[in-house]
Amino acid sequence: MGIDIPTLQAVIRITAPGGPDVLSQFSAPTPHPKHGEVLIAVQAAGVNRHDCNQRRRGPSPEHSDVPGLEVAGLVVAVGHGVAPEWLGQRVCALTDGGGYAQFATAPATHVLMVPEGLSWTEAAALPEAAFTVWHNFFVVARLAAGESILIHGGTSGVGTLAIQILSALGHPVFVTCGSGEKVAAARRLGATLAMDYRHEDFADAVLVHTAGRGVDVILDMSGGKYSAANVKALARRGRIVHLSPGEDAALQVPLRALMAKEAVVTGSLLRPLPDAEKTAIAERLGVVLWPLISSRGVRPVISQTFALGQAQEAHRAMEEGHHIGKIVLTTASSLT
Amino acid sequence: MGIDIPTLQAVIRITAPGGPDVLSQFSAPTPHPKHGEVLIAVQAAGVNRHDCNQRRRGPSPEHSDVPGLEVAGLVVAVGHGVAPEWLGQRVCALTDGGGYAQFATAPATHVLMVPEGLSWTEAAALPEAAFTVWHNFFVVARLAAGESILIHGGTSGVGTLAIQILSALGHPVFVTCGSGEKVAAARRLGATLAMDYRHEDFADAVLVHTAGRGVDVILDMSGGKYSAANVKALARRGRIVHLSPGEDAALQVPLRALMAKEAVVTGSLLRPLPDAEKTAIAERLGVVLWPLISSRGVRPVISQTFALGQAQEAHRAMEEGHHIGKIVLTTASSLT
Repeated sequence: MGIDIPTLQAVIRITAPGGPDVLSQFSAPTPHPKHGEVLIAVQAAGVNRHDCNQRRRGPSPEHSDVPGLEVAGLVVAVGHGVAPEWLGQRVCALTDGGGYAQFATAPATHVLMVPEGLSWTEAAALPEAAFTVWHNFFVVARLAAGESILIHGGTSGVGTLAIQILSALGHPVFVTCGSGEKVAAARRLGATLAMDYRHEDFADAVLVHTAGRGVDVILDMSGGKYSAANVKALARRGRIVHLSPGEDAALQVPLRALMAKEAVVTGSLLRPLPDAEKTAIAERLGVVLWPLISSRGVRPVISQTFALGQAQEAHRAMEEGHHIGKIVLTTASSLT
Repeated sequence: MGIDIPTLQAVIRITAPGGPDVLSQFSAPTPHPKHGEVLIAVQAAGVNRHDCNQRRRGPSPEHSDVPGLEVAGLVVAVGHGVAPEWLGQRVCALTDGGGYAQFATAPATHVLMVPEGLSWTEAAALPEAAFTVWHNFFVVARLAAGESILIHGGTSGVGTLAIQILSALGHPVFVTCGSGEKVAAARRLGATLAMDYRHEDFADAVLVHTAGRGVDVILDMSGGKYSAANVKALARRGRIVHLSPGEDAALQVPLRALMAKEAVVTGSLLRPLPDAEKTAIAERLGVVLWPLISSRGVRPVISQTFALGQAQEAHRAMEEGHHIGKIVLTTASSLT
């Protein structure tokens, strides 16, 4: 394959709880793929808000100190029980940490081929957002054909992919964003209606645009800031799906309004999802979503790339929040 | 039929917002059944907590000033579009108010035959609880075979019927109650586990009895007092269904715990449900629940009966909260 597997590799570690400064580059043993796993020579690794939250909390016995939940690269070794045909494949994968590295392992069942025409950077930007969109809309919220959706954080990594996928599948997509530039980007991606939440009452706007009916599913990454307005914007039997616990304060739900609509408040956490469920999502992504990427031109939106050694800068950019789409780390090697 | 339909009848009215004293008996025109409706000579009328809440709020343009959401009696007249075969039938019905009266109308599609062997009092105690149990467990919460449930308010009218129905259908039923007497009653009705919430941490007890798994569906009439403990007691992908908005304060939901379980908070209001949905519930009750009542000895639990003219006393008994099961008003006439 032309890829040597060195004994030691470069990784980024969370050294203490804190700001981006606590991220440091270390030399560490290259992992061996365990039973059912593949070893990936990482070409690019996605940066997620989850990584910043993990960094702020600091090292924990629960997780690897190397952040990174998604990578793209070449399979260079396989563990027991994994077909040798994986070797040399261009893949992207959901990882349980360990992505900010030159080499990362992942269960083979959480690995997908890089869709035709996508760069390493684009491929690395895909897993976390694609798994999140699929799981939350189709498993948790049971989105039905033609149902309308509202996404808070329309230009986040998840938001920019969700707009494209769900509008391609025929769902009206409403989004809120925090700047005029983001509103324009969301519209270009296919949003039916993009609103600047700083200047517009999104619940009123949604009700006007749906003739008073409201939306069927709301994807909320705000941690519950908009709880009352969410219930107001919701259609009867609509579902609010939370992706972020925010500051971990209790969510305030207007109970009578919720009951009157038989509305649902729910949510999910992707990382602790049982492996079997991640596997099931990966299978659905390969069957339903990957063809859509090829046929409909859906592309992860890349805001910025940084070299692996610039992980601090990548986290700063994430936390400044001016980005539209994904922030991605790239490794020094340049395979194609 | 031996039933004269008088021009004037006795009704109980809510005369002002307030305590039970604001209920007064009046003489009022006997209603005529409209298109699709039947006229019922009321033999008994169920009293519900909803009636007390409506009384406290006082007369409103939205609803009849005559409370009462369920009656049992004989059909004595039918409106246009209703088969004459209804005449003379022993029925019980969900009414949109107007039940505290000698005669009440109901859409024929919200009327069910009195199940074999039930008295008028028992039949009047059935509709509101049966529609509530069916709608919330099987429509809102999508209860699946074998799933376990927890009911707060195990000896309420809804609770006492739900224990019997759901344990007859094979669901483990956990309940909380507010006295030792109520706990004993809930056990006699078939509860797998009945807990006195004054002395026992119900979430811990439920987790112990389910080997740490938790329950699948929680029916909550507390208005959200137990929100954090509810989420703790819930299994992964469990649902909390609220039947009461309580004091109308915001429900406090522990968001991260909810997300970690992909748990659902939802609820419903029965009275404003669209007519077509009430009709669908009535059809399911006739097919699934009525045979169960005949074959499994399920019986509404009657706590106390009062004459129609004693509606004030009936509301006082409801608000004192010592009752186990239903409080029912009976009319002076004694048809059998």
